[in-house]
Amino acid sequence: MKNSQAIILIHCPDQPGLVAAVTDFINVNGGNIINLEQHVDKQENQFFMRIEWDLSNFVIPRDKIEDYFETLYAKKYNLTFSLYFNDYKPKMAVFVSKMSHCLFDILARYTAGEWKVEIPLIISNHEDLRWVAEKFGIKYYVLKINSTNKEEIEAEQKHLLEENQIDFIVLARYMQILSDQFIINYPDKIINIHHSFLPAFVGARPYHAAYERGVKLIGATSHYVTAELDAGPIIEQDITRITHRDSVQDLVRKGRDLEKIVLSRAIESHINRRVLVYKNKTILFS
Amino acid sequence: MKNSQAIILIHCPDQPGLVAAVTDFINVNGGNIINLEQHVDKQENQFFMRIEWDLSNFVIPRDKIEDYFETLYAKKYNLTFSLYFNDYKPKMAVFVSKMSHCLFDILARYTAGEWKVEIPLIISNHEDLRWVAEKFGIKYYVLKINSTNKEEIEAEQKHLLEENQIDFIVLARYMQILSDQFIINYPDKIINIHHSFLPAFVGARPYHAAYERGVKLIGATSHYVTAELDAGPIIEQDITRITHRDSVQDLVRKGRDLEKIVLSRAIESHINRRVLVYKNKTILFS
Amino acid sequence: MKNSQAIILIHCPDQPGLVAAVTDFINVNGGNIINLEQHVDKQENQFFMRIEWDLSNFVIPRDKIEDYFETLYAKKYNLTFSLYFNDYKPKMAVFVSKMSHCLFDILARYTAGEWKVEIPLIISNHEDLRWVAEKFGIKYYVLKINSTNKEEIEAEQKHLLEENQIDFIVLARYMQILSDQFIINYPDKIINIHHSFLPAFVGARPYHAAYERGVKLIGATSHYVTAELDAGPIIEQDITRITHRDSVQDLVRKGRDLEKIVLSRAIESHINRRVLVYKNKTILFS
Amino acid sequence: MKNSQAIILIHCPDQPGLVAAVTDFINVNGGNIINLEQHVDKQENQFFMRIEWDLSNFVIPRDKIEDYFETLYAKKYNLTFSLYFNDYKPKMAVFVSKMSHCLFDILARYTAGEWKVEIPLIISNHEDLRWVAEKFGIKYYVLKINSTNKEEIEAEQKHLLEENQIDFIVLARYMQILSDQFIINYPDKIINIHHSFLPAFVGARPYHAAYERGVKLIGATSHYVTAELDAGPIIEQDITRITHRDSVQDLVRKGRDLEKIVLSRAIESHINRRVLVYKNKTILFS
Repeated sequence: MKNSQAIILIHCPDQPGLVAAVTDFINVNGGNIINLEQHVDKQENQFFMRIEWDLSNFVIPRDKIEDYFETLYAKKYNLTFSLYFNDYKPKMAVFVSKMSHCLFDILARYTAGEWKVEIPLIISNHEDLRWVAEKFGIKYYVLKINSTNKEEIEAEQKHLLEENQIDFIVLARYMQILSDQFIINYPDKIINIHHSFLPAFVGARPYHAAYERGVKLIGATSHYVTAELDAGPIIEQDITRITHRDSVQDLVRKGRDLEKIVLSRAIESHINRRVLVYKNKTILFS
Repeated sequence: MKNSQAIILIHCPDQPGLVAAVTDFINVNGGNIINLEQHVDKQENQFFMRIEWDLSNFVIPRDKIEDYFETLYAKKYNLTFSLYFNDYKPKMAVFVSKMSHCLFDILARYTAGEWKVEIPLIISNHEDLRWVAEKFGIKYYVLKINSTNKEEIEAEQKHLLEENQIDFIVLARYMQILSDQFIINYPDKIINIHHSFLPAFVGARPYHAAYERGVKLIGATSHYVTAELDAGPIIEQDITRITHRDSVQDLVRKGRDLEKIVLSRAIESHINRRVLVYKNKTILFS
Repeated sequence: MKNSQAIILIHCPDQPGLVAAVTDFINVNGGNIINLEQHVDKQENQFFMRIEWDLSNFVIPRDKIEDYFETLYAKKYNLTFSLYFNDYKPKMAVFVSKMSHCLFDILARYTAGEWKVEIPLIISNHEDLRWVAEKFGIKYYVLKINSTNKEEIEAEQKHLLEENQIDFIVLARYMQILSDQFIINYPDKIINIHHSFLPAFVGARPYHAAYERGVKLIGATSHYVTAELDAGPIIEQDITRITHRDSVQDLVRKGRDLEKIVLSRAIESHINRRVLVYKNKTILFS
Repeated sequence: MKNSQAIILIHCPDQPGLVAAVTDFINVNGGNIINLEQHVDKQENQFFMRIEWDLSNFVIPRDKIEDYFETLYAKKYNLTFSLYFNDYKPKMAVFVSKMSHCLFDILARYTAGEWKVEIPLIISNHEDLRWVAEKFGIKYYVLKINSTNKEEIEAEQKHLLEENQIDFIVLARYMQILSDQFIINYPDKIINIHHSFLPAFVGARPYHAAYERGVKLIGATSHYVTAELDAGPIIEQDITRITHRDSVQDLVRKGRDLEKIVLSRAIESHINRRVLVYKNKTILFS
């Protein structure tokens, strides 16, 4: 089995000596750095770093690392950090509606063991994809949401998520707008796929809008959900070429491949702790 | 030398027998079809076709073809068409401001003989690129435009264009908004390059806007200019990948390559009579 | 329900009047042309065409169309053609080995009804993917092939294919080389996915070879299988960018998405009768 | 004006404490790190790093940095390094033959001031592009090379390069094979553009070979020249989509845009000291 590793994501005002200080902390305590990537945003004067190190000979016990790091560095450098361990499998909930392509792509990777993640449940507002969930032996809850029962249904959703100790949520073409009160519970923890090259074609029916505008490329965008619709931090985007011969239905068909790949890449980056959100933008460590 | 060829672009309401009728007209009169591409827009119920044929043994004299076609088909099928001959070199004017990359790309192709086109003049609102024009021996006119003299300067521009029998205009990062009265004289004959993936980031400073939004791809769009800003029929678009490490200046730098290639592809399609505009969208024959 | 449509794929030596003759045949007999795409290969002097027409008012009975077309055109123009009907669902067999990603992608599309195809059976040389087949309720046959029993096993495979009236075969990372005797029975009817940008990295372990060579892009190629390994007519190719940071395992991981998308696009083109093979190359109608 | 900066490229066997040691060296001596990127090749167990730092308050004089670094680190860590200063403009020679597109692209960027480089001379085996060199006011030498005078001509080339203190050479579609004796003088200092997706279509006439094979994408590859033809370390590659409609001439035309962009990106990476060669592969710092 692979050794236990720790991953730390850091950001703070840029200042001399940061890299040396943090790498020294790991080295002198017996950690072996496996990956280090840093970035300085000169416009914002902010420093960002992701470090992954082997814990085999690390002298600080894993449950004390956070405390030590907080004490030694966080205050001194006005530094914000998140600490993860590679042997913890985050728990992910999938929200779906009627379309199966993103869900199938997620479950195929999941069952093939490509991702270090658990998927305890799928939540939907329709029965349509129950058969898919059943194929893969995953609990499927239908909570029919409408304009009058949103608050109540979202409370039920939240209850299910808590009961299953969910770490993050994937909206795999869920087609419902979450309330601000719901979103606020999961900051940078709800990943959506929008079927356009954002910020073009925000909102409903982007393929119809793309067709009307006569664009020569269509896109898909995966982003964290924030209170403002389709305006959260972008994790991943991609496009595919279309022509005048493509009808709206052709865009929908070609777009499906884009959507599922872009969403799965974003999920993978999130699972591997490669995404750091700062001021509505993402640092995507490679 | 290559034989003379005629190119006809057609559109009309879709109806049975169109392809057979038009190809028959060319065949029975001794024309040899070199290329034929048709397209039916089912939503609009419109038929589009581009045919290119060799005139070597064509029995109708070239100056009569338009008349014959009009008489025999245009009324019968409620058909709109444009006729071109491959041995006529269209005359193109280039409007520039201060940036040289698109202009260099155009002139490099022009002087290397890649395009069947004449470039009699370059018009600018600044002296900055006179040296480039002089390198390539092309007339360079500076007409300093501002908020108070627009009407007058555009009249001068129009005079120059007419004097030089210009067929179409390329705005190679011209950075000025043309008046509706000017645009109306050149329908589907002014090609612009906008440095974003339209319809995202319409208007000024799109790279700054892209940077602010945190997109993962930047784009460039070449389109025909219409009265509404950055909203004309799109001819060509492309994108390139960026990361959080790219500053606005990096976007500008990476964008330059996109802009010049996308603009030159659009110009090439226009020169080769491969673009047909219908309802603010383009049919781009291959 | 959609009306019945016929699709004809044609090739013959280029000669004047071909388009007019064939479109006239359809028109005068009451067929409504829905799509027509033609191509002339000037180097080979060959003419290619794909026509799709509505049969609702077509006066020739569908079981006589082939005969009429043969009599009226095939001999006259030295023309080769294939006739298909859109209401017949071709039967496809999938051959797999141990990797699930292509199979999942195929079955997800199949069960979502994206493709007009039947998949009566999956054949493998390993038990590994039986669970996937069972999830989707498709028969799964394990025929363990090795260096000594190839002839015998291929005879069993052939028997199964015939019993299930299979029209074409998809090798979804099958990892076995088919014998010439087997291939000869399915000309342009076996679709393979090779995990490189052919003709680079023919044969085994292309990701290892790509890693060793230090390429900056990796690719996948879907092609029809011919007697020469990895040298058949290419249907579809695509690439993705890699960097020096990617290990062989990263190439394998990134390559999976490429492989499944490229293979599925090729299958879709085949199902929709958009592929015409001529001299070891494909004409891919759009 | 921008402050002076130093750039150091390092590689050595991987070992704990490297990042901390080197960043500490810069920090304690008053340098401000602007960029740091490291990479560990686990298969080779090699460590690679690029650091860029501001020299404004650096206490070690710039002409002593190399010596100090050698003494303090190189032996201790068995470390190989190259030191550069951002205010030195490297001198680049361009070798051309008859095609102008890459040369124009290089000179357009050069004269627009996009690159921190000097181009003292262009060397060719033909007179064809003298007019381009003259447009840009750059010395143009014609040295007609053939099978019998290679040694002698290469000696003349070498003399010219030395006289002009050339740091690196760009083969902008030079179309001649350099001798091993010539190449050996410029290790990792001769950048070539090959008009295929290497390792596919090594050698002469790759577009013809790509056409014959029926590929669906064509590529271009920029690499350092080594003794083995088209087999040196790859710096940059890209591709563009083609179809069955493209003739060899179309591939040549579409390929030109690829070639010039790929070559210019490689030159830019080289000028900015972002390329480190190790075992016939490149580490490309971002």
